[in-house]
Amino acid sequence: MADAAWEPGEALRGLAELDDDRAARRGYPEAVYCEGKTPEQVAAIAAEVARLGLRTLFTRAAPAHAKAVLASLPDAHYAEGARLLAWPPEPPAAEGGRVLVVTAGTSDLPVAEEALLTARHLGREGDLVADVGVAGLHRILGRLAQLRAARVIVVVAGMDGALPSVVAGLVSAPVVAVPTSVGYGAAFEGLAPLLTMLNSCAPGVAVVNIDNGYGAGHMAAQIAAPV
Amino acid sequence: MADAAWEPGEALRGLAELDDDRAARRGYPEAVYCEGKTPEQVAAIAAEVARLGLRTLFTRAAPAHAKAVLASLPDAHYAEGARLLAWPPEPPAAEGGRVLVVTAGTSDLPVAEEALLTARHLGREGDLVADVGVAGLHRILGRLAQLRAARVIVVVAGMDGALPSVVAGLVSAPVVAVPTSVGYGAAFEGLAPLLTMLNSCAPGVAVVNIDNGYGAGHMAAQIAAPV
Amino acid sequence: MADAAWEPGEALRGLAELDDDRAARRGYPEAVYCEGKTPEQVAAIAAEVARLGLRTLFTRAAPAHAKAVLASLPDAHYAEGARLLAWPPEPPAAEGGRVLVVTAGTSDLPVAEEALLTARHLGREGDLVADVGVAGLHRILGRLAQLRAARVIVVVAGMDGALPSVVAGLVSAPVVAVPTSVGYGAAFEGLAPLLTMLNSCAPGVAVVNIDNGYGAGHMAAQIAAPV
Amino acid sequence: MADAAWEPGEALRGLAELDDDRAARRGYPEAVYCEGKTPEQVAAIAAEVARLGLRTLFTRAAPAHAKAVLASLPDAHYAEGARLLAWPPEPPAAEGGRVLVVTAGTSDLPVAEEALLTARHLGREGDLVADVGVAGLHRILGRLAQLRAARVIVVVAGMDGALPSVVAGLVSAPVVAVPTSVGYGAAFEGLAPLLTMLNSCAPGVAVVNIDNGYGAGHMAAQIAAPV
Amino acid sequence: MADAAWEPGEALRGLAELDDDRAARRGYPEAVYCEGKTPEQVAAIAAEVARLGLRTLFTRAAPAHAKAVLASLPDAHYAEGARLLAWPPEPPAAEGGRVLVVTAGTSDLPVAEEALLTARHLGREGDLVADVGVAGLHRILGRLAQLRAARVIVVVAGMDGALPSVVAGLVSAPVVAVPTSVGYGAAFEGLAPLLTMLNSCAPGVAVVNIDNGYGAGHMAAQIAAPV
Amino acid sequence: MADAAWEPGEALRGLAELDDDRAARRGYPEAVYCEGKTPEQVAAIAAEVARLGLRTLFTRAAPAHAKAVLASLPDAHYAEGARLLAWPPEPPAAEGGRVLVVTAGTSDLPVAEEALLTARHLGREGDLVADVGVAGLHRILGRLAQLRAARVIVVVAGMDGALPSVVAGLVSAPVVAVPTSVGYGAAFEGLAPLLTMLNSCAPGVAVVNIDNGYGAGHMAAQIAAPV
Amino acid sequence: MADAAWEPGEALRGLAELDDDRAARRGYPEAVYCEGKTPEQVAAIAAEVARLGLRTLFTRAAPAHAKAVLASLPDAHYAEGARLLAWPPEPPAAEGGRVLVVTAGTSDLPVAEEALLTARHLGREGDLVADVGVAGLHRILGRLAQLRAARVIVVVAGMDGALPSVVAGLVSAPVVAVPTSVGYGAAFEGLAPLLTMLNSCAPGVAVVNIDNGYGAGHMAAQIAAPV
Amino acid sequence: MADAAWEPGEALRGLAELDDDRAARRGYPEAVYCEGKTPEQVAAIAAEVARLGLRTLFTRAAPAHAKAVLASLPDAHYAEGARLLAWPPEPPAAEGGRVLVVTAGTSDLPVAEEALLTARHLGREGDLVADVGVAGLHRILGRLAQLRAARVIVVVAGMDGALPSVVAGLVSAPVVAVPTSVGYGAAFEGLAPLLTMLNSCAPGVAVVNIDNGYGAGHMAAQIAAPV
Repeated sequence: MADAAWEPGEALRGLAELDDDRAARRGYPEAVYCEGKTPEQVAAIAAEVARLGLRTLFTRAAPAHAKAVLASLPDAHYAEGARLLAWPPEPPAAEGGRVLVVTAGTSDLPVAEEALLTARHLGREGDLVADVGVAGLHRILGRLAQLRAARVIVVVAGMDGALPSVVAGLVSAPVVAVPTSVGYGAAFEGLAPLLTMLNSCAPGVAVVNIDNGYGAGHMAAQIAAPV
Repeated sequence: MADAAWEPGEALRGLAELDDDRAARRGYPEAVYCEGKTPEQVAAIAAEVARLGLRTLFTRAAPAHAKAVLASLPDAHYAEGARLLAWPPEPPAAEGGRVLVVTAGTSDLPVAEEALLTARHLGREGDLVADVGVAGLHRILGRLAQLRAARVIVVVAGMDGALPSVVAGLVSAPVVAVPTSVGYGAAFEGLAPLLTMLNSCAPGVAVVNIDNGYGAGHMAAQIAAPV
Repeated sequence: MADAAWEPGEALRGLAELDDDRAARRGYPEAVYCEGKTPEQVAAIAAEVARLGLRTLFTRAAPAHAKAVLASLPDAHYAEGARLLAWPPEPPAAEGGRVLVVTAGTSDLPVAEEALLTARHLGREGDLVADVGVAGLHRILGRLAQLRAARVIVVVAGMDGALPSVVAGLVSAPVVAVPTSVGYGAAFEGLAPLLTMLNSCAPGVAVVNIDNGYGAGHMAAQIAAPV
Repeated sequence: MADAAWEPGEALRGLAELDDDRAARRGYPEAVYCEGKTPEQVAAIAAEVARLGLRTLFTRAAPAHAKAVLASLPDAHYAEGARLLAWPPEPPAAEGGRVLVVTAGTSDLPVAEEALLTARHLGREGDLVADVGVAGLHRILGRLAQLRAARVIVVVAGMDGALPSVVAGLVSAPVVAVPTSVGYGAAFEGLAPLLTMLNSCAPGVAVVNIDNGYGAGHMAAQIAAPV
Repeated sequence: MADAAWEPGEALRGLAELDDDRAARRGYPEAVYCEGKTPEQVAAIAAEVARLGLRTLFTRAAPAHAKAVLASLPDAHYAEGARLLAWPPEPPAAEGGRVLVVTAGTSDLPVAEEALLTARHLGREGDLVADVGVAGLHRILGRLAQLRAARVIVVVAGMDGALPSVVAGLVSAPVVAVPTSVGYGAAFEGLAPLLTMLNSCAPGVAVVNIDNGYGAGHMAAQIAAPV
Repeated sequence: MADAAWEPGEALRGLAELDDDRAARRGYPEAVYCEGKTPEQVAAIAAEVARLGLRTLFTRAAPAHAKAVLASLPDAHYAEGARLLAWPPEPPAAEGGRVLVVTAGTSDLPVAEEALLTARHLGREGDLVADVGVAGLHRILGRLAQLRAARVIVVVAGMDGALPSVVAGLVSAPVVAVPTSVGYGAAFEGLAPLLTMLNSCAPGVAVVNIDNGYGAGHMAAQIAAPV
Repeated sequence: MADAAWEPGEALRGLAELDDDRAARRGYPEAVYCEGKTPEQVAAIAAEVARLGLRTLFTRAAPAHAKAVLASLPDAHYAEGARLLAWPPEPPAAEGGRVLVVTAGTSDLPVAEEALLTARHLGREGDLVADVGVAGLHRILGRLAQLRAARVIVVVAGMDGALPSVVAGLVSAPVVAVPTSVGYGAAFEGLAPLLTMLNSCAPGVAVVNIDNGYGAGHMAAQIAAPV
Repeated sequence: MADAAWEPGEALRGLAELDDDRAARRGYPEAVYCEGKTPEQVAAIAAEVARLGLRTLFTRAAPAHAKAVLASLPDAHYAEGARLLAWPPEPPAAEGGRVLVVTAGTSDLPVAEEALLTARHLGREGDLVADVGVAGLHRILGRLAQLRAARVIVVVAGMDGALPSVVAGLVSAPVVAVPTSVGYGAAFEGLAPLLTMLNSCAPGVAVVNIDNGYGAGHMAAQIAAPV
């Protein structure tokens, strides 16, 4: 691995090392984390992506980042709520199992959208069920058939983070749980649902970082990959 | 429950599932948590509320949320300090016991107002006593008769959060304690009074989330409900 | 209040001040917290209790504490799992509403028993439903009638602490939630269920300290008190 | 679901509600969490398991728990390091993909064994690679072929918890990461590797509770389930 | 200072540097913190103390430490509850103002005793008032005259730690607050009362470490020093 | 105390209860905490202060608060860095011992100024020594005479918070330590110096809240009060 | 040391004490921490620096601070990303070993630049390798020769903070690890990589504060100093 | 690297992978972390060490571990306080600069000894200065010459952890700081000194894990390595 004759394009020297080996090595496209990068840095990376013609996601992209990407990749798709740019804009043809993304509340939608888009751009079919938190159980119980048809379920929830335990207890599919920073006070910016999900009394739940829709969608795509 | 023929209105599809079953199931009206929702999302929910004629509270509503609600429910009542919208604007006729809301300081007033309005819109009579923290004990001791006339007391306090212990030690009514984010430094955004209240040396204290006036008012209304 | 001619018995001078005024002031009997006290100190207090004939609970009592109490109050009732001693051993005649105590798991039973016994010794009727956590929802859904017959529900849960949100969403009665230290790792000795419960997405939940069955039973007794 | 005519055996009344519906509902056998239960309680549950002939795992079982189980289920298999009892002792015939369990250090072995046995008793083939932490990268790089043959990889690590990021970056399979309490000081009983894993710079990592080998094995079995 | 011709006795070389300059520099005797030292190390220090005839306190001394000290200083006074050894056993003649030590509960007594003995061995007169926590306000309000007669008040409390705020609001003397590890659950080994005290709504409170009776007594002695 | 015929002025009814009894009860003037209050609320309080002619400090006052106060009390003194308003603008004649305020760095000056002004307005003489942190020990060692002339020393420090330990080890006066939020990263907004100061290896240090210059100045004034 | 006839220039009296003794005492130039200082204070210090002709770094300097410095030291070098001003603008002639600064991601560059410039202005030669995090191991393995040529390696990483463990395991040089606040959610502003680095399974790693490029560069310069 | 024909001895298969490449790759001997390993596992590793004749340290070794090692390596040196076994028992000939280990208190000695022995067994000369904490500054100031003669200084401190800042401010050598779990209450098992050290106001301090004497000694040996 260390002997690969890897060479960055000029524009990135001293700045970034695009992992163009990733698709070959892992089977999934590269992703560029935009937060903390200047628009200029993101622009240089986008230019390199364009030069290489490399399928890429840009995550946690603020509007200024999006503008920088669109200058080099004008047909990239920007989902502003999800802060995600995808290039090429269309997902590849879907294969493998279905990914179902479920949210406890409406405020969890941006993270859910990031998960869903990621799964789709990694080649999976996916659906969304929103606002079915445990305060009104009939909402989730009314979706049992849909839950049981999924190969993997991404459950997105803030506040008490109780939904993944309930969902996992109803199905045989694995649940990828995403705590969100939705809530206030003792939610401690997502710490409360994170701990809830890590302590799920129902087995079959694994957890990604707070608000990490990208990571959940990636994990779900891997789980639902064709065998 | 799962067999209820529940159907969201068109406007909310894929966005929110209004719990219009809540009043029947729980006996208390629906509440919409606005924080983290876009004004557009809140507007769609308010339109659905108007269509259904469903008694509803909108909590943690910023002015932009309020504007969105008032477009569909122009006679809704907006208490800006409490960030609460109530529709219909008038509470139902009061029944059950009295709810007394007490604050340690003046800075705790917005949370106290949210609790008081919630209790009233859930059908209870309520009163407010403000700024009677333990640094000057004569203030709370001067209200003993009023304290002892309540069926339940909501105590709102930041900083040291000591007031609920003192109040609970003086009365037979249960105390719902609300820690607030009032304070600085080692108050850690309300963590200090939260821990104080959870460790009350006087029994008869139960605690809701930091700054959760809505939750405290709801709990108080349930406690003071007519038997 | 300050002018009350209060005088401790000789044995307690410099050691403890029995709050024999509590029953008059609050309407509920005194409780002695045993943890951190030596058996000798507990013995002195029990002797004073015997001298005054004062209805009293001894909480968090290890066997050595129990032995010290039983020397002075030989007919006291010791519930070893709940670490609770009650004197007199029989609860007073029950009045007011029903208290229902529900646990998520079998390991939560000692805390639940402490809550139930406390409510009974404070004059309420109470029942227990055990091991109905959300991992198998049919268990709690199968108890809806019982849940809805209670004036107040105490929900005891460790790990993800998700049960109170689910229960509160099904009933009109207030829920007193008790996080337990059941669990490991990121349960952090009860911190995880504590945060879950404070962030309940269903209103009508208030929380007491981790493993605080006594506090929950006391609060429940006050809520279910006859009006 | 709520209408299922569920009835506990006499022995468990008021103590535990065995989720004998779980296999039907979820497709995986029931597990009994022993920590915090008395040996007597575990004995009652084991008797019920024997009566029902229900495939069951007993997790976090201390020797006293094991003894209680073996009284009713004498042929149960007890893996003392993993604190796991399985009954029946033999796993079912394996189907689905391979599960690979990898540890950073030797001290992580008990948790890894719990994961591996769980996956096997849930019907998967599994292998173990031990002590290949990142301090000597040649160890993990020397196992690339084995890593890439797995349908899912469970990575168990304490201290810096860096191994899951490295493994995930090398393969297309999803990684279930298990932080352990191995380490001291600022490892804070597993908090450090937990945070590391949640913040993995390589996507494709989801995390279970500290030391939760059972949960990791369960999740892995679900991921590697036959489609 | 750096030029002082300081020389440890032989026994301590490479082990400890007795601060025999402290009395001259600070006006208060040396104290030896025993926790974490072996009895052998404490014995060597005690021998040096004996050789120098240096007034010394040994703090947080377990029985094994006490035995080691008493071998060299047979007339030292050991207060086992307070884990404090004083040599010489008698305090110096008292001068300066009165120190009053107040506890919220009986379980706080060992820490209070450590504070009181320290103040006395540093030359102050001191008194103790025990078990006057805020759950029964009449207890502390009944001691107003005694509170107002003190030059400084040490308030020792665990659990909610509310007593220092109440006391400080009643008097002109400064309050040294000592949080204790009395309590459980969300008391987090004294963190809760520590935060309460740091956030006192009444000014005139300063805080020492959890269970640090020695530090509180020392501070109080300095505050009440003769001018 | 509870029988005092206390009556708020009209303007404050339902808003604040000025503790005009404080000077009589405690011997120190009232202080109004402005943070979290609206300028309108502060204006109402200032008007009441003007009506009563009551010596008062307004703490943590932003410019909008200051403007509101100056409308009613035009000659009040506003120290913008310290966010403190004093009325009347001149301190009373000084009596008692000297208060010395010492800072580790220049960034700690606003907090130090708040402490110094508070002490002066409570009737003490006070001096300031700035920027003498332990990174260059000669700076504090060069002030030994000044340190030893003080009746009480307030030490203000952020970052490592090491200065109070060093100062306390050099003098006989008590040290009131004030952690500040100066620093970044693992200073955690003042948590690091707070913990340092609570764990001072030199006795004679007591701690107030992070950035609490007012509290430190008040405590220092009490300590240095004339006997 | 205490006897040094140290005297601040007039402009700094009561404000700052420039440690002009530092170069003599420690062999490294003074640094002025700008955060929390007003531009006026920084201007006064810069003027003193100009008066003394003292080699100085200004760290964590916002543009307003930079403007204040440049008024007195117009040829100072301002690296805006690193928030560092150096005067004189040119580093001294390099001596000692090479310092290599390595970053896990592009977002870590500002901190890395601060470290590199600091090392250079303290007299060392230094190089930068960017964006070689462990998610694509070939990137760091492709730099083995460069890693092994360094006398000391500064590794800068956010998120999982795994890179220092990997680097340390490959070389004989010591590693100074710098956690950054790059990341979100459970990265907790740098806490996650900080803990990772403190728990490195490879020895030879020591850690500085989150985002503390200056501290890392200083430490590296000392390690690589000529013997 | 990945192609190295690495093969574990039979005894370790499935248990541990001895990093016998470490000395070649890093220039320092292998170390075996014993905590969490069974004596049987440690015995198997020791046998492999004996077979390979590989210079090795065994860290955090309890007496049972020591016994297991000594069975295979009877001449190994066991330092019980430091919980360290070294084989061969004699350090190699010393080269490079001097390592000075300094402790704040006597209770810090076991960690200091671990650091010192590690440095010696890695080929450095080292000395120890004990009990020179900042509460009595003359102790550390009296050792200036010794401090300034060292190539690197390891400073070991618990409680307030203030000593590294003071030492670093006095010398040109880098300081490796080791927080210890010495202390109680708000020391939080070493968290307090850890944070202090990370926030050192004097540059030139880098920090290792709490109680990590081995890591500090290793880092110091690398810093003081011959160039």
